[in-house]
Amino acid sequence: MKALYYDGKQAVYREDMPIPEYDEGHSLIKIMIADICNTDREILKGYRPDFRGIMGHEFVGWVVKSHDPSLVGKTVVGELNEGCGTCIYCRSGREKHCLLRKVIGMSVDGCFAEYMTLADHLIHVIPDGLPPEQAVFTEPLAAAIEITKQVHIDPSLNAAVIGDGRLAYMIAQVLSLSGVSLTVIGKHPDKLKLFEPFADTALYDDYLNGGGYRDLKADECFEYVVEASGNESGIHLALNIVRKMGTIILKSTYAGTTGLNLSMIPVNEITIIGSRCGPFEPALKLLSEGRVSFPKVELYDLMDFEKAFSSDAFKAGFRFE
Amino acid sequence: MKALYYDGKQAVYREDMPIPEYDEGHSLIKIMIADICNTDREILKGYRPDFRGIMGHEFVGWVVKSHDPSLVGKTVVGELNEGCGTCIYCRSGREKHCLLRKVIGMSVDGCFAEYMTLADHLIHVIPDGLPPEQAVFTEPLAAAIEITKQVHIDPSLNAAVIGDGRLAYMIAQVLSLSGVSLTVIGKHPDKLKLFEPFADTALYDDYLNGGGYRDLKADECFEYVVEASGNESGIHLALNIVRKMGTIILKSTYAGTTGLNLSMIPVNEITIIGSRCGPFEPALKLLSEGRVSFPKVELYDLMDFEKAFSSDAFKAGFRFE
Repeated sequence: MKALYYDGKQAVYREDMPIPEYDEGHSLIKIMIADICNTDREILKGYRPDFRGIMGHEFVGWVVKSHDPSLVGKTVVGELNEGCGTCIYCRSGREKHCLLRKVIGMSVDGCFAEYMTLADHLIHVIPDGLPPEQAVFTEPLAAAIEITKQVHIDPSLNAAVIGDGRLAYMIAQVLSLSGVSLTVIGKHPDKLKLFEPFADTALYDDYLNGGGYRDLKADECFEYVVEASGNESGIHLALNIVRKMGTIILKSTYAGTTGLNLSMIPVNEITIIGSRCGPFEPALKLLSEGRVSFPKVELYDLMDFEKAFSSDAFKAGFRFE
Repeated sequence: MKALYYDGKQAVYREDMPIPEYDEGHSLIKIMIADICNTDREILKGYRPDFRGIMGHEFVGWVVKSHDPSLVGKTVVGELNEGCGTCIYCRSGREKHCLLRKVIGMSVDGCFAEYMTLADHLIHVIPDGLPPEQAVFTEPLAAAIEITKQVHIDPSLNAAVIGDGRLAYMIAQVLSLSGVSLTVIGKHPDKLKLFEPFADTALYDDYLNGGGYRDLKADECFEYVVEASGNESGIHLALNIVRKMGTIILKSTYAGTTGLNLSMIPVNEITIIGSRCGPFEPALKLLSEGRVSFPKVELYDLMDFEKAFSSDAFKAGFRFE
C-alpha cells in the first residue's frame, strides 16, 4: 500500500508497505482523509528521534475488518494514545499519559497510508451527515475542548486567547460557545479578522509599553487566559493580563528553558493548567450540529506530501481513493 | 504606647507612639500576643521599601472600643488585608487581592504595639477555651487551609509536602486530616522527626541521581505536591515527582527568575496553583477542637525584639501587659 514513512531523518513516500495485520481488540481501517498536524512537522525537525514508521494521527476512515462486528463498515475517527491498560494512569482515566503507551504516527504506524489498525476502544463512529472534511477536525477540536473539561468557564466573566493560529481558532470557537466575554490577542491583523465573528480582537503590541508590558487595571485583566501562541512571549503576556486568582491555560509548548518570576504565582494566587489531548465525543457532537466549523481542508495526493507539508492553508491533508 | 516601628531601614523600639484613633467601621484592639512571621523578617531585608510604620500582622488581642458593641470585650484575631470595598476584587470575594488594599504591618500600622485598630469585618472572635498562645497561629494556619479551599484533595490518593519548616508543618497537619497518604520531603533529618506522628518522611537527596533527579515510576509519583520549602530546588523537585495530570500547589516565594522547561506543563497536563492567605473560621475551628496543634510560642518583651527576631524557635513573638 501507499504510505508516508519517517525513516528517522525525513518523510519518504513508499508504495511497498504491507497492509497491516489487525490483532485481537483492534480494527483495520481504510483511510479516507488524513490531516497534517503541527506535531507531524515537528517530527520532521527531530521531535521523535527514535520513531521509524508511518506518520500521521488525524484521520477519517471506514472500518474494513474488526473483531467487533458492530464497527464494520462504519465511518470513524480515532484517538491516538493506546495505553498498557494496567498501570495507574490507565486505571484512572489517564490512558493518554500511560508511560508505556503506543502513539499512532509517533511510536507506531499512523494514518498517512491507505490502511491503519487501531484499538477498538479508541475508535469513534462519526454521526450521520457529518462530512469527512469536517470530521477530520475531531482530534484537534477535542484538544480545544479539553480546556472546558479541565476548567469551569464562568460565562459571566471574561477570557482571552493568546495566539491567532489554528489552535487558537479552535479554542476561541469552543470558548465562544459558553457566552463568556472573549478577546483574542494576536500579532497578525489579517489572521485576527477570522476571529471577528465571535470574539473581540486585540494586537499583542497593545499590551506593550516601552520595553515591558503595560500595567493593566483590574477591569482590563482576564479571569481566564489561554496561551496558544506557540511563542514564549505568550506566557509572559498571560502572566501580565491574568486577574489575581485567575487561571492561565497553557496549550503551547516551547523548546528549552523559560525564565519566570515564580513568586507572582503564589502572591497573586494564579492557577496554571497544562492542557493537551481531549475528549472526542463532544467534538463530534459540536461538529455534527454545526456549532463550530472550520475552513475547508486543502487536500493533496500522498505523493505530493512536500507541497502539503509546506502549505500555509488553515489545514492541509491527504485524500485517499 | 510601646511599638516596634519600621523606619525604612530597620526596626526601632519606641515608647512614644500615640494610641491610634479608630474610624467608623473599625475597632480599637489591645494586643495580648503578637507573633513574628517570616514576612516581618523579609521587611527588615527590604521587602516593603515604601513602608513606614508599626510592624506585625499575627496577633491575639481584645477589643477595647468599637462602633460595633457586640465586639467590645471579646478576645479576637484579625485578617491583615483591608480592601477598598468597591473594585472587582473586593466585589468578588478577593478582598486580599484588592490593588488599593491596606495591609497591617506592611502598608499601615500593625500589631507589634500595645494597641492597633482594625476594620470590624476583618475581626474574628476566638472560641471560648482556646488559649491565646494557640489562637495566635490562626493566620498562618489559615494560609495552610487555603490549599484545601482551592484544591479538592481526594483522600484515596497521595500527597507530598516539600519542605520541613514551619509552613510545611502547618500544611502537613492540615493535609493529614483528610486521610490522604502523606509524605514530607525535607533536607533536615532533625526537623523531619516532628512530622513522623502524622506523615511519612523522606530526604530530598533520596530523589536525586547524579546531577539530576531520579526517574520515578508512576506509582512513586504524587497526585498533589505542595511546594513549601522556600527554596528554588523545591519547584524543580515538585515537577519531577508530580503525577501526570497531577497538581502542584506553590506556597513558597523565591526572589528573582527561575528557569523552567514549561513544555512539561501542557505535555503532562500539570496544574500549578499559587496559594497565599486563607480563611480564618476553619483555622479557629481546627485549633479550638485540638485537631491541629503547634509547639509553644517563645514570647519576648517588645524591647527585646532583636532576640525575638533571631530566635530559631518554631515560633517567636511578643507578650504585652
